Amino acid sequence: MKRTSRISELREIISSEKKRGRKIALVPTMGFLHRGHLSLIEQAKQTDAFVVLSIFVNPLQFGPNEDLSRYPRDLERDAHLVEEAGVDVVFHPSVEEMYPRPMLTFVEVGELDRVLCGSSRPGHFRGVATVVSKLFNIVQPDMAFFGQKDYQQYLIIERMVKDLSLPIEICPVPIVREEDGLAMSSRNIYLTAEQRLEALVLSKSLNEAERSIHGGQRSAREIERQIREKITLESHGVIDYVEVRDAGSLSDVTDIQSPVLLALAVKFGTTRLIDNKVVEVEQNV
Amino acid sequence: MKRTSRISELREIISSEKKRGRKIALVPTMGFLHRGHLSLIEQAKQTDAFVVLSIFVNPLQFGPNEDLSRYPRDLERDAHLVEEAGVDVVFHPSVEEMYPRPMLTFVEVGELDRVLCGSSRPGHFRGVATVVSKLFNIVQPDMAFFGQKDYQQYLIIERMVKDLSLPIEICPVPIVREEDGLAMSSRNIYLTAEQRLEALVLSKSLNEAERSIHGGQRSAREIERQIREKITLESHGVIDYVEVRDAGSLSDVTDIQSPVLLALAVKFGTTRLIDNKVVEVEQNV
Repeated sequence: MKRTSRISELREIISSEKKRGRKIALVPTMGFLHRGHLSLIEQAKQTDAFVVLSIFVNPLQFGPNEDLSRYPRDLERDAHLVEEAGVDVVFHPSVEEMYPRPMLTFVEVGELDRVLCGSSRPGHFRGVATVVSKLFNIVQPDMAFFGQKDYQQYLIIERMVKDLSLPIEICPVPIVREEDGLAMSSRNIYLTAEQRLEALVLSKSLNEAERSIHGGQRSAREIERQIREKITLESHGVIDYVEVRDAGSLSDVTDIQSPVLLALAVKFGTTRLIDNKVVEVEQNV
Repeated sequence: MKRTSRISELREIISSEKKRGRKIALVPTMGFLHRGHLSLIEQAKQTDAFVVLSIFVNPLQFGPNEDLSRYPRDLERDAHLVEEAGVDVVFHPSVEEMYPRPMLTFVEVGELDRVLCGSSRPGHFRGVATVVSKLFNIVQPDMAFFGQKDYQQYLIIERMVKDLSLPIEICPVPIVREEDGLAMSSRNIYLTAEQRLEALVLSKSLNEAERSIHGGQRSAREIERQIREKITLESHGVIDYVEVRDAGSLSDVTDIQSPVLLALAVKFGTTRLIDNKVVEVEQNV
């Protein structure tokens, strides 16, 4: 496995693979990898492409009061993990390599970026769309893999690719969970033992909501109320949002008819966790 | 020469040229071509690249009260001209081909887009940066040619390419003028005979200002005053702006030391013309 922190060196490596007719797959990450990331790599490997994994904690997508400086990092551990997983090259640029001058250029995906995490983290998705654009331009991959844990991010990137005619296939990969149901996240390491236990309420409340919909509940507000109630009763988590939205457009839903996204963000202490579930609805005959 | 209005067909044409090792040069235009455009093509031809010329009157870069609907168009005349000039393929998509769904994604280049034409045409450069991004993603050229008549546009695109790591060389091409000095523009066709004559004051005032700087004048405000005075005295043109700015960053200049951009926009009737000149300064020893 190759490793480089230089854009120019990465371009040379990729260009020689392309000349040999290899397809290129990109797995963009912020590092501190877990089994969720390994599942992205696994999907990428299945395409027989040359797999590029990027590790970059992107300052542009952190708000002024967020956890940029304490975001967990462990490059050596990550490198070891991805080598075992069969990644072909790890790209781990410094902030200076990615942003050698003040960034004036930003990519924004309107509407989709204003709801859910977009309203509690202003500028976050602008930072994501901009860095992903830049990574796409550097790597010029044929396909790129995004985890559905960040479902809104996946939708935004997919829309950006369509709107700007990027010749890249965006491949979503299902959420990977701990055995007890907690969605994998680099931020789980922040949790105390007690918070870790309480955080199980997130996946449980989503599962309950799904059962409720499958049982015939069609009111989005009622589903949101049920999830909120369970989280409030069974944990000290402070709810940022709990919302039922259209799974394709993220638009408001009142009456659940087409596939919906159940999405939530909840703070345990200073740690903000997100989780979600897409629920298909059997149409009434 | 090939012609296509389809993104997919253009991609096939370009891809087969790339496979044969050809470099790709892009000349993006809004059509209704004049000798300024032909000069872009000439520069592109000199690289021995496969030359793609796009013709697209981009709605995103027109304001609600601007001349989108009456912007001059003549595809057959254009196609004839560029065939003679040696263009390899003309890409003339419809609005539906370029924007098949509501555009949610926009590319913005901050700071550079707020001054000069950016302040009188809000959203204009956002529309330009977005469509040029999209054309870059469709064509994936090795180089792209932009006229210096739209100097601010050229700087914005150059910055976008650097900030987003697009692997494209941006080649600026000097302004082409009529024999009497009027800068070539598709919009010159709107001018009445009288306005056409009066519009000569633009290039004349820029030339005078250059002589004044070379003669030792170092006050940016005084240069602006001289240009304004000449335009006001010698024409009925209504000044939108006359500004002296740093030629690299477009930042404010008080004392002229490094190369400056003399830029102006003036309305003759309903027709808004722009012109500019970059003036190098001999440093005091």
